[in-house]
Amino acid sequence: MPDRLVIIGGDAAAMSAATNARRGRSDLEIVALERGCDTSYSACGIPYVVGGEVGDLDDLVVKTPQDLRNDFRIDVRTRHEVVGIDLDAGRVEVRALDRDRTLHLGFDLLHIATGARPVRPDLPGIDGPGLYGVQTLEDARELLRAVDAGRCRDVVVVGAGYIGLEMAEAFVRRRARVTMVEASSQPLGALDPELGAKVAEAVRRFGVDLRLDTEVEGFSQGAVHTADGDVAADLVVLGLGVRPNSELAIDAGLDAGAKGAIRADHRQRTSAAQVYAAGDCADALHQVSRERAYIPLGTVANRAGRVAGVNLGGGYATFPGVLGTAITRVCEVEIARTGLSEHEADEAGIEYVVGSVQSTTRAGYHPEAERLDAKVLVEKGSTRMLGGQVVGADRAGKRIDVVAAAVTARMTAAEFVDLDLAYAPAVSPLWEPFQIAARHALANVDGT
Amino acid sequence: MPDRLVIIGGDAAAMSAATNARRGRSDLEIVALERGCDTSYSACGIPYVVGGEVGDLDDLVVKTPQDLRNDFRIDVRTRHEVVGIDLDAGRVEVRALDRDRTLHLGFDLLHIATGARPVRPDLPGIDGPGLYGVQTLEDARELLRAVDAGRCRDVVVVGAGYIGLEMAEAFVRRRARVTMVEASSQPLGALDPELGAKVAEAVRRFGVDLRLDTEVEGFSQGAVHTADGDVAADLVVLGLGVRPNSELAIDAGLDAGAKGAIRADHRQRTSAAQVYAAGDCADALHQVSRERAYIPLGTVANRAGRVAGVNLGGGYATFPGVLGTAITRVCEVEIARTGLSEHEADEAGIEYVVGSVQSTTRAGYHPEAERLDAKVLVEKGSTRMLGGQVVGADRAGKRIDVVAAAVTARMTAAEFVDLDLAYAPAVSPLWEPFQIAARHALANVDGT
Repeated sequence: MPDRLVIIGGDAAAMSAATNARRGRSDLEIVALERGCDTSYSACGIPYVVGGEVGDLDDLVVKTPQDLRNDFRIDVRTRHEVVGIDLDAGRVEVRALDRDRTLHLGFDLLHIATGARPVRPDLPGIDGPGLYGVQTLEDARELLRAVDAGRCRDVVVVGAGYIGLEMAEAFVRRRARVTMVEASSQPLGALDPELGAKVAEAVRRFGVDLRLDTEVEGFSQGAVHTADGDVAADLVVLGLGVRPNSELAIDAGLDAGAKGAIRADHRQRTSAAQVYAAGDCADALHQVSRERAYIPLGTVANRAGRVAGVNLGGGYATFPGVLGTAITRVCEVEIARTGLSEHEADEAGIEYVVGSVQSTTRAGYHPEAERLDAKVLVEKGSTRMLGGQVVGADRAGKRIDVVAAAVTARMTAAEFVDLDLAYAPAVSPLWEPFQIAARHALANVDGT
Repeated sequence: MPDRLVIIGGDAAAMSAATNARRGRSDLEIVALERGCDTSYSACGIPYVVGGEVGDLDDLVVKTPQDLRNDFRIDVRTRHEVVGIDLDAGRVEVRALDRDRTLHLGFDLLHIATGARPVRPDLPGIDGPGLYGVQTLEDARELLRAVDAGRCRDVVVVGAGYIGLEMAEAFVRRRARVTMVEASSQPLGALDPELGAKVAEAVRRFGVDLRLDTEVEGFSQGAVHTADGDVAADLVVLGLGVRPNSELAIDAGLDAGAKGAIRADHRQRTSAAQVYAAGDCADALHQVSRERAYIPLGTVANRAGRVAGVNLGGGYATFPGVLGTAITRVCEVEIARTGLSEHEADEAGIEYVVGSVQSTTRAGYHPEAERLDAKVLVEKGSTRMLGGQVVGADRAGKRIDVVAAAVTARMTAAEFVDLDLAYAPAVSPLWEPFQIAARHALANVDGT
């Protein structure tokens, strides 16, 4: 009998592992057990479908179960939920949801890619109708049904993280009255406050009623109750972040890492032999702080899944760790960050100086030049680049990549300032804003 | 008497040196001798003024002579042409053009920033009317006078380099019939042929009659004569590249470097004590080939000028060398390159493999996703990144920066592929195209 690789999950971290394992070992039997109906899709694209910019949810699907069967001989079983893992016996317990039957499946190799789920706070009415997470294509279908039924005149988005902001924009595009309720004093906690304030401005300019420092106290039909009064809502989006779907793995005895996620090493191995994990259910090493971190992003899931797959297929691949690079474009601004924020550097006990700049997206005299605010963090002493953040108009965001490269390469701020970056009036100011910010940081290091 | 720094020139490399020297030494007497009327302007912006996108030539001026006098105590003398340098005597011979008088000016320190001039081939009619270079604001004024007088119904651009392409686009915007005559088989010789071909497609799509492999044989009133027949022309733009204005310096006895430019070391010092040079008149070390190179670009001029100024002001600064990063947006495509092209790697005797990709500017399903072609060069053996090139729609170009950082940091292709770059459907495909290209190159290194 050939070795059997069982994969729990059907999205990015699961299917990039499956296809890479197949490339490594053509003899392997690969079975993927997916609780939902869909495999291998771009969850990041859901807001664009809800907002009507992308016409069809099917456009987000990278590989259907049938593609995976035909092209990679992966035995994909959708609507199959794994309810238990027996590491000693080397088998999983599976509920076939459509047949209401439970079966057991043995494995020689196991890959856990169970993803994450939206945080649902324990508040009155949280399980009532009209509340939606944004995680799976099934969530998206439900949202689209609500849109089609016209049940989205008053939309409340709870939580001003990436997905919350993207959904707020989507519903403004649907001509809803959108209120955003955020418990903290800024949107996007991954940014430092002064850049969070720029995002808040943009969100409000776009027509969203953003209420900061506002706690949600509960939900009822037609309303969200907050400490500052009720907000009308025929549709509520939960954008409070996600938690790792790691209970199954932890209950089976695997070690937990950051934020309760499954601890995975640099080859995506868990604490049990022959068991791998990747994606939103697993943690990773942070490249800058050198501490365990939980960064549930599609890029990480795809990369880590690939590493797991190469190793599962008998090859050798390592995951370099996470840098926390993230980007979005919402409400007509681009927002990006990489490495450590001030808060994260403080937590990691890393001392730093900051350099900030207000610049433009193109040469100042170019008719399409628009505002951009950027900052970098530079370590005291070593002067190495620790991270960067940017909020600005069209074209601001992808500038973060060169900061990500510099942080990874452990460049000093002076080396970063010396980089020969591309300039033409139509695409950039003469001095890359991040380089000006780094120069300011260096001046702050020197105390000048 | 205070030390006197004489600067020959008034543009980027001259004025960034002057202002930085001032910051370092408040006691210095600084005299800048500029042949023309203008100082410190963005020559890169000229095509946008000619094309009507930027309203006023004055918008391109960063610092006027008066600004430089008031803010930096720089004695700027425009319309003063240096006609001789006597290194032994420590003085320059200057013609005051408006007074037709010659004078001598002693220096303790000398900075040469004489720039470059458009190549004018020795062809019949080259000195006739209606032929324009694009180098100085004075050139731009003459072009604008021709535009205002309606003398640009039939425009011929000779040479399909960066400035030629940008001027071709500008005149299409002015509703001219634009013909571009290029002796070689592709536009933009700094690109490899397959990407040059993409540029050719874009230029033709934009409405330019691009004639490749076509030699110009001469000019006469109303026509450009080529080996393939005459082309109607009431205005001709010379876009055949530039040559360093280095004769004055070489005649004075300074060593020449690449392409006849003044040889400058890593602190921008020439072969004579107390004499510095920077900008389009000077050469530089290429960071990848480690050979002398001549790269006349505004970014280099500003950076090298700053280094010269810090050193002239008694500080210590070094120029890291050039990488050959360049970018433009013309005819609705963005074009960028960095490091070595195949031709340059061949010339430097560096063996390489290539990785190419056809990708998109955003996630494939995003309604604004458009095509992008990218390639990278990776050294055999070391697998370090040598360079990259990209041609694509809006947002393609600035992706080159992360390649520039990788080349400078001497990253291997595998390290580059591992970089945690920013992804969101509205700004990027899931996998950065340059990373896919690098992965393809790695596969080619392995011979798989």
